[in-house]
Amino acid sequence: MPLNTQILLDNRPVGEAVASNFKRVATETPALADGQVLVRHHYLSLDPYMRGRMNDSKSYAASQPLGEVMIGGTAGEVVESRHPKFAVGDQVVGMGGWQQYSVVNAAEPGALRKVDTSHIPLSAYLGAVGMPGVTAWYGLVKIIAPKAGETLVVSAATGAVGSAFAALAKARGCRVVGIAGGPDKCAYAVDELGFDACIDYKLHPTALSLSKALKGACPNGIDGYFENVGGIVLDAVLSRMNAFGRIAVCGMIAGYNGEPLPMANPALILINRLKVEGFIVSEHMEVWPEALKELGTLVATGQLRARETIAQGIESAPEAFLGLLKGKNFGKQLVKL
Amino acid sequence: MPLNTQILLDNRPVGEAVASNFKRVATETPALADGQVLVRHHYLSLDPYMRGRMNDSKSYAASQPLGEVMIGGTAGEVVESRHPKFAVGDQVVGMGGWQQYSVVNAAEPGALRKVDTSHIPLSAYLGAVGMPGVTAWYGLVKIIAPKAGETLVVSAATGAVGSAFAALAKARGCRVVGIAGGPDKCAYAVDELGFDACIDYKLHPTALSLSKALKGACPNGIDGYFENVGGIVLDAVLSRMNAFGRIAVCGMIAGYNGEPLPMANPALILINRLKVEGFIVSEHMEVWPEALKELGTLVATGQLRARETIAQGIESAPEAFLGLLKGKNFGKQLVKL
Repeated sequence: MPLNTQILLDNRPVGEAVASNFKRVATETPALADGQVLVRHHYLSLDPYMRGRMNDSKSYAASQPLGEVMIGGTAGEVVESRHPKFAVGDQVVGMGGWQQYSVVNAAEPGALRKVDTSHIPLSAYLGAVGMPGVTAWYGLVKIIAPKAGETLVVSAATGAVGSAFAALAKARGCRVVGIAGGPDKCAYAVDELGFDACIDYKLHPTALSLSKALKGACPNGIDGYFENVGGIVLDAVLSRMNAFGRIAVCGMIAGYNGEPLPMANPALILINRLKVEGFIVSEHMEVWPEALKELGTLVATGQLRARETIAQGIESAPEAFLGLLKGKNFGKQLVKL
Repeated sequence: MPLNTQILLDNRPVGEAVASNFKRVATETPALADGQVLVRHHYLSLDPYMRGRMNDSKSYAASQPLGEVMIGGTAGEVVESRHPKFAVGDQVVGMGGWQQYSVVNAAEPGALRKVDTSHIPLSAYLGAVGMPGVTAWYGLVKIIAPKAGETLVVSAATGAVGSAFAALAKARGCRVVGIAGGPDKCAYAVDELGFDACIDYKLHPTALSLSKALKGACPNGIDGYFENVGGIVLDAVLSRMNAFGRIAVCGMIAGYNGEPLPMANPALILINRLKVEGFIVSEHMEVWPEALKELGTLVATGQLRARETIAQGIESAPEAFLGLLKGKNFGKQLVKL
């Protein structure tokens, strides 16, 4: 029975999330029952949605229960199996949470997925070829539904979702403009991720200033927007949307810590006949095979090369997560276990 | 050549629209060219969208030019014709504007439509069986797309659009809750229009108070909302929307006069995976035949009996219109010419 270090949610944030919201414990992994598999995690995925789960209030998914292992996507390998379809050594992806090992009821649909690491690195299954990639795919393909030649904008552009969004949008012949924080991220977006332009929101403290920058980067207006942040970024983009524009609302990280952030001028939804639609990718499992196929091809052929920031060891997960919420990561935030 | 009294837009409102924004003139109607028809208007339709057209700013349609006859739907009869398909005495509906007569190029698609007044009164073609009715139909059928048993809410419930919305929604087996101003309108909504409940927004000066009232009237939450007003009414409804709810944004009359009205908590779009979509019914002419057929049947069979407020004489149009913007009308606002 290996010793399993786990990170639990100990108490809920009041305002900003802090390290003391988490608690580290170590337990022995239990003996397996029939149909169960023991997975040793190599990578833990850290994602903005986790902040929403930490709140008690009605969020866009169930609350993370106190005293339980934090929810999270994991990639690893089978180290013990009592399920006929999984063998020791299999590379697998699941929702193992913030811990070194997980015991999985492998028969549960979707609980554990075997992956092929011959052309795609294991960690990519937590990013471009995983939930973040499918998130980008769903918002782009099913909500924005762009035509070639249209101009699309994505916030948090160099993150796991934004990176995939850019590759998917370029493959559809669109102009893609990113919004990111700082000159390094913006240069990376254009030089490495294929964005046509990227705006540093840190240079634009007001919606008006950001709106002017968007006008320069989007001379034909904005037809589609993939929203990861909310707040004045949303206000600025709304002011540049073309008639019949579509906005896929995936995240509003700007408002996670406290008071709701208003939308300054919702009448623009009417004036420009916009469609604004929120979604959670886990509610659309039917698209995953198609999306993962396209994303896997983009990664395997080198058309999508997303950067990763990798923290070392399960103990580093809370600080790495808090840094992610402040945009300190560069690309996909992982923890190597 | 009959003398034609016209109301022009003389200057644009600064803040609230006022009577002095308009100017009355009289001119002789010109001689007809080939293909033209002279229509004597019996009814002029007054509608909230006209307020948006009075602004110079980018609105949800082209601005009304200064010094020209105010835009508006009209119903009347042909009094002179140089078009083979129109005869003197034909009952017709068009966009004749705020004037007693109009000269119409009858060959222009959609410029003039002959109507049958044997089972449907002429004025209904400006309301339930006209643009407002189709507006309700489009938002309900194409955006909200309700299932039987769902709960739907409409603001400005006793207006021309709200009345039609109620009849169309009841025909689809939905629970329909109205929001209107004052006890008389609310009683009328329930007693005459078929609403299951109606909330008097004048009793609820805050979004929180209105939200509580909505909770009482919508015990199963709100699945679809037809938005005519914006402001705190929108905030209150948003707070009661169910997951996967749909909001058809048809009007935001609350914000026509000045500063944009913010949406307090747009994160609810994400949290409840809502679809919020703005539309202008004149951009969806393809649905008009199907919509008008259903609406005409509802009126002819007495299932939709919408009230009208009728001002007398073209001179009364400005004051009647300003009253409409303040909710002084009861049902469809018309001017009898």
